[in-house]
Amino acid sequence: MISVKEALETVLNSTQNFGIEEIPFLKSVGRILKEEIVADRDFPPFNRVAMDGIAIDFDAFQNGQRAFTIEGIQPAGSPQITLQNPKNCVEVMTGAVLPKNTNVVVRYEDVSLQNGIATININEVKDQQNIHIQGKDRKSGDVLINKNTIISASEIGVLATVGKSTIKVAKPPKVMIISTGDELVGVNEVPEAHQIRRSNIFTLVSLLERLKIPSETAHITDDKPILKSKIENYLQTYDVLLFSGAVSKGKFDFLPEVFEELGVEKLFHKVAQRPGKPFWFGRKSILVTSDEQATKTKKFNIKRQAVIFAFPGNPISTFVNCLAYFCAWYYKSVGVNEPVATAILDADITFKPNLAYFLQVKLTYRLGQLVATPVTGNGSGDLASLVNADAFIQLPKDKIHFKKGEIYPVLKYRN
Amino acid sequence: MISVKEALETVLNSTQNFGIEEIPFLKSVGRILKEEIVADRDFPPFNRVAMDGIAIDFDAFQNGQRAFTIEGIQPAGSPQITLQNPKNCVEVMTGAVLPKNTNVVVRYEDVSLQNGIATININEVKDQQNIHIQGKDRKSGDVLINKNTIISASEIGVLATVGKSTIKVAKPPKVMIISTGDELVGVNEVPEAHQIRRSNIFTLVSLLERLKIPSETAHITDDKPILKSKIENYLQTYDVLLFSGAVSKGKFDFLPEVFEELGVEKLFHKVAQRPGKPFWFGRKSILVTSDEQATKTKKFNIKRQAVIFAFPGNPISTFVNCLAYFCAWYYKSVGVNEPVATAILDADITFKPNLAYFLQVKLTYRLGQLVATPVTGNGSGDLASLVNADAFIQLPKDKIHFKKGEIYPVLKYRN
Repeated sequence: MISVKEALETVLNSTQNFGIEEIPFLKSVGRILKEEIVADRDFPPFNRVAMDGIAIDFDAFQNGQRAFTIEGIQPAGSPQITLQNPKNCVEVMTGAVLPKNTNVVVRYEDVSLQNGIATININEVKDQQNIHIQGKDRKSGDVLINKNTIISASEIGVLATVGKSTIKVAKPPKVMIISTGDELVGVNEVPEAHQIRRSNIFTLVSLLERLKIPSETAHITDDKPILKSKIENYLQTYDVLLFSGAVSKGKFDFLPEVFEELGVEKLFHKVAQRPGKPFWFGRKSILVTSDEQATKTKKFNIKRQAVIFAFPGNPISTFVNCLAYFCAWYYKSVGVNEPVATAILDADITFKPNLAYFLQVKLTYRLGQLVATPVTGNGSGDLASLVNADAFIQLPKDKIHFKKGEIYPVLKYRN
Repeated sequence: MISVKEALETVLNSTQNFGIEEIPFLKSVGRILKEEIVADRDFPPFNRVAMDGIAIDFDAFQNGQRAFTIEGIQPAGSPQITLQNPKNCVEVMTGAVLPKNTNVVVRYEDVSLQNGIATININEVKDQQNIHIQGKDRKSGDVLINKNTIISASEIGVLATVGKSTIKVAKPPKVMIISTGDELVGVNEVPEAHQIRRSNIFTLVSLLERLKIPSETAHITDDKPILKSKIENYLQTYDVLLFSGAVSKGKFDFLPEVFEELGVEKLFHKVAQRPGKPFWFGRKSILVTSDEQATKTKKFNIKRQAVIFAFPGNPISTFVNCLAYFCAWYYKSVGVNEPVATAILDADITFKPNLAYFLQVKLTYRLGQLVATPVTGNGSGDLASLVNADAFIQLPKDKIHFKKGEIYPVLKYRN
């Protein structure tokens, strides 16, 4: 049985590139940017008026002049005008181009206006005050957003400013989420006494939706030939198969056998952790015939890889393994370095088995610290306990007593 | 000029209830639950086998018996069978109903199977071991998810389990986002030398999308009669108008006058903060005629409220005010108590103006602490600097020197 660290390394060695697609910028929040965004002009693109007021020539003020005849108005959105007489002024609005021959803006708060004359009521101004100088923030050609950035609202504003109405983002993998287990019925069905409703596949859909990965779902009955034939088909179509259930020691836990018979390379089965121990992970290289090739030569020439994450069917096991392994795999596949959050354990914990322990915790911000308070659950089947927590804190194996105040990594599942 | 605290209190006194809508559960991540979700059955709904293995009668084992004839199999998803002879056993699978007359499950790892006989290889078992007892996690009728919960993947699993294929969630307000400023052109246009592209409205759309609030956008030219007529119409249709620009001292900053002429109650204009000082906030009660009433009596009888958040047009000002005021207003309107995150300032900061200072910071988790490193920007017009930060740290007014290690609230805009 391998360790969590080894399992994660193995998973991260099976990442792949799913290519790039171009989408409207306004649909891109949460997606991974796959091009550098550069400034198409200087930022700001002109000497920009930064306060409403009057624009003057600095020398006139320095020579003691305080009253300025208003020559004109420079609103935002109008072409630059020119101050004709250096002893006059122009009224200027925030966002406007600074008029030619001016180099100081005095805000309305410091000016009296009367009969077409603006009188400045302060005795000190600075050269270039209240002017946002062309190119001060960024120069034309500067990189504004790096490749592999996760796009948020702040990037959206920059994309709009540089006119990127469509952008290149990472194409998500094609994912099929499959539940097994004959005890499962649909959400709209009324279960018999011995049945329960399907839930894990919907949890997985939602966890992937958080990463902006669309997915499809299917349920396969615990019947080996049916499992085999369906999985064979899915391997041809999807980049990732996520399973929940049928990987443990039960008489109807057919998945490991089926994977083997289908030529899927087993990379590991079982990880020294609780919950989620019976996790099975593998991959298969798929030879695909391009349409043209197939007709002409019958030769296979395109090779792609499908990966299989087969999680144990208990709800907490499926949930934590998706967070710990699938999410990490996805981020590496698309080129993102997700920083690991750490939190401070808020209670003493004793855990005897020699397994890594993913403990459910409620996170709170307390004076700049992220504090993890353990949530009492009844084991890996206690689905409802997930609702009372925000994250899993990852307590290492080879240690039994964990003390309040110690710091460990956390896997968060709320914002 | 009022303080940030007073401004926020005023905004939070203008919250309102936008009602409830019923949506498919799988579309509800990020939405606010508006009903209690109760267990439709016990959790688990039956004595559930928790390990693959054999089920026996505890007394037989206690009496020294170790070899048990296998009477049958109890797979998951099959109706409960009965152990006929208390000296025999039943093979049982994880997720199955525990067979009648059994009360202990011994996992396959501790059993040898040969010729229809299961021999137990351990000398100690506990009564009820490896059985997830009916109702242990939750009892039928227990509240599983509280009203006003923000739905995440963990709630989705619970909703599926209890058969809630549709759920009641808070209806979002109807929001119109309006840009002003004649210097603005569309994202697809090539700006003239004195123009820039619209960006704030798209930033706002994306910030609202994070809250799952759909919105519409419009641009209005800096022309007072046009502004007035369009805003009058929007007030009839929308619950919230978000403006960017035209609230400062410029000759074309018509919004405050237009609001006054339209009978919008000004609650405040200008907040002692940087950036974002010229923020204008107000509300208007709208009398609406119901269709039936209108025909019969011509009487107005439905009263609703529209609120106006008019943010200054500088990109950082619009952004921070949306986070600080609109988001807080929305959460209170829909009944959510969003906890305030705090972070530890990672550098000495001096800020002389007697204003609250929303400083851009990059957040990092460092040994369980959330550390805020200031990001150098060039003022409220420096849109590109938002990309290098994750949050604003809120430094209070009436203080000039802020020391490394001090703790202040943060407004985060990334996950």
